[in-house]
Amino acid sequence: MDKLNVNALFLGPKSENQDFFKEMLNFMMNDFIDWRKDFHPQDKPIITDSDKDREDYKSTLLKTRHTLVDLAGKLQTCSMPWFSPRYLGHMNTDTLMAANLGYMLTLLYNPNNCAYEGSPVTTELEIELGKQLAGLLGYDPKRSWGHITSGGTIANYEGLWVARNLKSIPHAIKKVLPELVGEISDWQLSNLTSVRVLDLLDEVKVAGKFEDILRLSARGTGVLDKNPGKLLVPQSKHYSWVKAMDILGIGTENLINIKVKDNYRMDIEDLKNTIEKLTVQKIPILAVVGVVGSTEEGAIDEIHEIVRIRREFEEKGISFYLHIDAAYGGYARAMVLDENNKFLEYDDLISTLKEQRIIAEDTDWPSPEVHKAFKFMGEADSITIDPHKMGYVPYATGAIVMKDKRILDLISYFAAYVFDKSENNPLLLGSYIMEGSKAGATVAATWCAHKIIPLNFTGYGRIIGCGITGAQRFYRTILKAGSIIIAGRKFQIKPLTLPDFNMVDFAFNEIGNKDLTAMNELNQKIYELCSYKSGPVYLNDFITSKTALSEEEYGNTPGKFVMDFGIPWEEWEKVKSVYVMRSSIITPFLVNDSSPDGFMNNFLKTMKEKITKIIS
Amino acid sequence: MDKLNVNALFLGPKSENQDFFKEMLNFMMNDFIDWRKDFHPQDKPIITDSDKDREDYKSTLLKTRHTLVDLAGKLQTCSMPWFSPRYLGHMNTDTLMAANLGYMLTLLYNPNNCAYEGSPVTTELEIELGKQLAGLLGYDPKRSWGHITSGGTIANYEGLWVARNLKSIPHAIKKVLPELVGEISDWQLSNLTSVRVLDLLDEVKVAGKFEDILRLSARGTGVLDKNPGKLLVPQSKHYSWVKAMDILGIGTENLINIKVKDNYRMDIEDLKNTIEKLTVQKIPILAVVGVVGSTEEGAIDEIHEIVRIRREFEEKGISFYLHIDAAYGGYARAMVLDENNKFLEYDDLISTLKEQRIIAEDTDWPSPEVHKAFKFMGEADSITIDPHKMGYVPYATGAIVMKDKRILDLISYFAAYVFDKSENNPLLLGSYIMEGSKAGATVAATWCAHKIIPLNFTGYGRIIGCGITGAQRFYRTILKAGSIIIAGRKFQIKPLTLPDFNMVDFAFNEIGNKDLTAMNELNQKIYELCSYKSGPVYLNDFITSKTALSEEEYGNTPGKFVMDFGIPWEEWEKVKSVYVMRSSIITPFLVNDSSPDGFMNNFLKTMKEKITKIIS
Repeated sequence: MDKLNVNALFLGPKSENQDFFKEMLNFMMNDFIDWRKDFHPQDKPIITDSDKDREDYKSTLLKTRHTLVDLAGKLQTCSMPWFSPRYLGHMNTDTLMAANLGYMLTLLYNPNNCAYEGSPVTTELEIELGKQLAGLLGYDPKRSWGHITSGGTIANYEGLWVARNLKSIPHAIKKVLPELVGEISDWQLSNLTSVRVLDLLDEVKVAGKFEDILRLSARGTGVLDKNPGKLLVPQSKHYSWVKAMDILGIGTENLINIKVKDNYRMDIEDLKNTIEKLTVQKIPILAVVGVVGSTEEGAIDEIHEIVRIRREFEEKGISFYLHIDAAYGGYARAMVLDENNKFLEYDDLISTLKEQRIIAEDTDWPSPEVHKAFKFMGEADSITIDPHKMGYVPYATGAIVMKDKRILDLISYFAAYVFDKSENNPLLLGSYIMEGSKAGATVAATWCAHKIIPLNFTGYGRIIGCGITGAQRFYRTILKAGSIIIAGRKFQIKPLTLPDFNMVDFAFNEIGNKDLTAMNELNQKIYELCSYKSGPVYLNDFITSKTALSEEEYGNTPGKFVMDFGIPWEEWEKVKSVYVMRSSIITPFLVNDSSPDGFMNNFLKTMKEKITKIIS
Repeated sequence: MDKLNVNALFLGPKSENQDFFKEMLNFMMNDFIDWRKDFHPQDKPIITDSDKDREDYKSTLLKTRHTLVDLAGKLQTCSMPWFSPRYLGHMNTDTLMAANLGYMLTLLYNPNNCAYEGSPVTTELEIELGKQLAGLLGYDPKRSWGHITSGGTIANYEGLWVARNLKSIPHAIKKVLPELVGEISDWQLSNLTSVRVLDLLDEVKVAGKFEDILRLSARGTGVLDKNPGKLLVPQSKHYSWVKAMDILGIGTENLINIKVKDNYRMDIEDLKNTIEKLTVQKIPILAVVGVVGSTEEGAIDEIHEIVRIRREFEEKGISFYLHIDAAYGGYARAMVLDENNKFLEYDDLISTLKEQRIIAEDTDWPSPEVHKAFKFMGEADSITIDPHKMGYVPYATGAIVMKDKRILDLISYFAAYVFDKSENNPLLLGSYIMEGSKAGATVAATWCAHKIIPLNFTGYGRIIGCGITGAQRFYRTILKAGSIIIAGRKFQIKPLTLPDFNMVDFAFNEIGNKDLTAMNELNQKIYELCSYKSGPVYLNDFITSKTALSEEEYGNTPGKFVMDFGIPWEEWEKVKSVYVMRSSIITPFLVNDSSPDGFMNNFLKTMKEKITKIIS
């Protein structure tokens, strides 16, 4: 079989594949139009030629035309040119032709994946997608459960929802069927493993008390009855975790930030110490969240270490739910799976990625820790993954996958026995998920993408590998540049950290400047000149995003980066925040630019121009 | 100005407007393709002709082609023909050409309305939409706040989230700034009006204690600290309200069902009695939900009566949050607004609707109660409304509007002062809403629809009026038919109730049958022959949906409908559930069929055929 050609998957920065795109669109539209006409051929047209002759008919069409022209104009003037390698900011780039076309076609059929009855086609595709994502993330597709959400935020909520309800189950069992748990303390009830709770629930079902238990669990009583415990997340967390604690009624004050190390990965020692401290105080731990691809730094937490720690604590009778927020990095696990979707050990992987030209010869990726993190993802209870990020499909498409599908009973609004028959019975997805109505078109778009692009290194690996290679080159370009001289003044440029994935944060400081506020102002001005802040971005040479790393969120970790610029520690203690540019390099087009360093040079040239503008 | 021509707004059941649709699509695609090409004309194409000559390039394109052909085939075989007047089931019909085209174009730009930076165009359109919907629903657009959600379910969650957090604020104030509330009991703190709480919060901000208060409110502490009270919803509620109680940590057991009357509207007497009973027990009422367009019956609760009752109780020191779930019926408020968006009084309205041919001469709508319900909607604290239902736009597009935009501070994750400057400052919507990433395309689609179709009786009224007229005629067709004779056996057909809106539920029973189980079986079989249950629906003559009205959900109200068929009450008490067909008539094409009774006759003819099949 021919290998996948990344250039043939996208419309392209110069609409290079426009002919194919238009041809397919045309085919699909005719196909759809005929579908309507062919439905009961004996039915006559309802809109007649004489209707079409009416003045109000013509003026209504004209209104539609004007509105669409108006919209097109607005979009052209101010939209972000994600498609160009000149855009290196948020996790956005060109999206797959197949996904866009699949979306456009399905949109016209307008299926609603809330209920099978409204989406006989796309509900089945969603079930299929859930299994595919389970396999990608290291789960057994037969024992797990996954579905599409409108984004990673909702997926994170759903993960915490499941965890919260699960944690409350043993306490309900103690009330209704005490014989199942025996003589056991409240503390022990709060520390049963997920598997143990699900096994107990199976016994509850046999005893015919399932509904009673639900009624006495957090689902029925709210969290009023029982403190569900603390949520432990790294400082690098997405802010949806804070919102999640509010929404789910647990409270933002019950979220504990675990420190990050200099590389912005969770500090495993701090995690361990925190768990020990809470254990001494007999405060239960609701869940720990590991992040695979932090949104601000692209850091990949050492999942293998979190898993190891959980095992160690479980031997001491302490357990917690483990969720991985891989909204950003989840698809990158395709990089470590071979053409048969088998996980590759490290040495094999490194040589194969280069042999197959998935990662360029000049690039070393992944690090052994990142590889091990991917290896152990399948140990988590649930994982968030966003097709609309590294799946290269349009918004709004997130997903959640749960390791053990029995867990679904905790959040479903149908009798448990219905799900057991789901292979034969149509699914009312709305009863098993947080959301209600949802666009089947997002599912069709992702299904098309997965159909063409295997979820291993022959498929997504090949696309994502371009971004990773690009990111590592971008990182090295910054390192190598070191500084830029403008009108006799010297400006140092530094990357925040060696990227675990494909995001590079960086900042400038004028050599000799020891004032953090001044440094922040410089970087803010650069950002403003590289974003919508200086007017429509369409004419901009380089467009990026930014973030502020504050003491409130990150503790003192960013202070070390500030010190590297020769700024004294006292400045960090005073200002407590550093402003950095943030470039997610997910574009597949930075590496196959015809002049190899074209866009890298463009970047440095543009930076020079912007700083010139600022200081002159 | 010419009036709106409904036939020019849709592609049409026979793709009658295909030429216009394809012309516009072609224009938009070329426009988008050129946008990419014109971005930095000096940048050379990245995908070259020699790339295109490669075998793997060609085979990748071929894979895309095969996948899309595969998807198109699947969609054709099993999709629901929403577009045809033969489909009368869920709230689905043809969607607006402008909305579909606007979606398709915007999809390619792929804006993310989570942050302004990723959606400079569509974030502004979303703010505009929020104001338009506020006006439609009877709010002051300047003082209110509305935004797009992925559906009514999420909008309902957000309404309850706001209510829950609001309810907890006075208790937090008592702890931090007791002087603001003075000598006041816990009970009184739980019964302050929404406006009073928001006024207090303004004082809290002046005192610089806003963050402290939030930390001690439900947001910070979870609901563990303080029981938020009971949620009162009519039995006809959408099931998302039960899920909402679970998700928000309040607990499903704290939801109280208010009875419905024979017309499936909330029983106001029962509401009043329930409030009184809770008051005696000193159990606070978190919120009351009124439904404008119940999903199973299309019933419109008497909002004016709920508002009256709230006023009466407020005089006695009892208050609650009021949310209206108008996911289904919200857009119908356009029917009672004139060309200047002014609310019309009853007599004026009735004559104008007929004069302007918005409602057909043979149809009486709305009833005085429905008119009054619309009149008082603006008194509610928040309202759910779904553009993807009666807004005729594609999935997934819901919305929530809140009467007093100060309420936003309770769920926002940015300092309050940012919002006050929102007119000048770009909005990070993700910080003010439940969801995170969201498709800007849904916003653009709805914006196009509203741009062409005024939110009053000259616009949406004209489309929705077709459905209402169709529903009333469908209702009368059923009444008039009375029964159908098949092979000497007589089958009675009855509508559940005179529709408040555009939904007609109905059922059959063989005359003489006194067995409810047998009646349910008959209707279930009819449904199965009119749905995907009997194979792909494409060849079906009539397609509908169904619902079961059970004693568990509705108390004994459905029992009276069963009795009307001559089935004894004991049967209801034994079986406790009645199976009915459910037809939402939102198609604009049932009234302007060229043969006036074509589809009505088709319906009765088809019913005859289906029953023949069942009994033979």
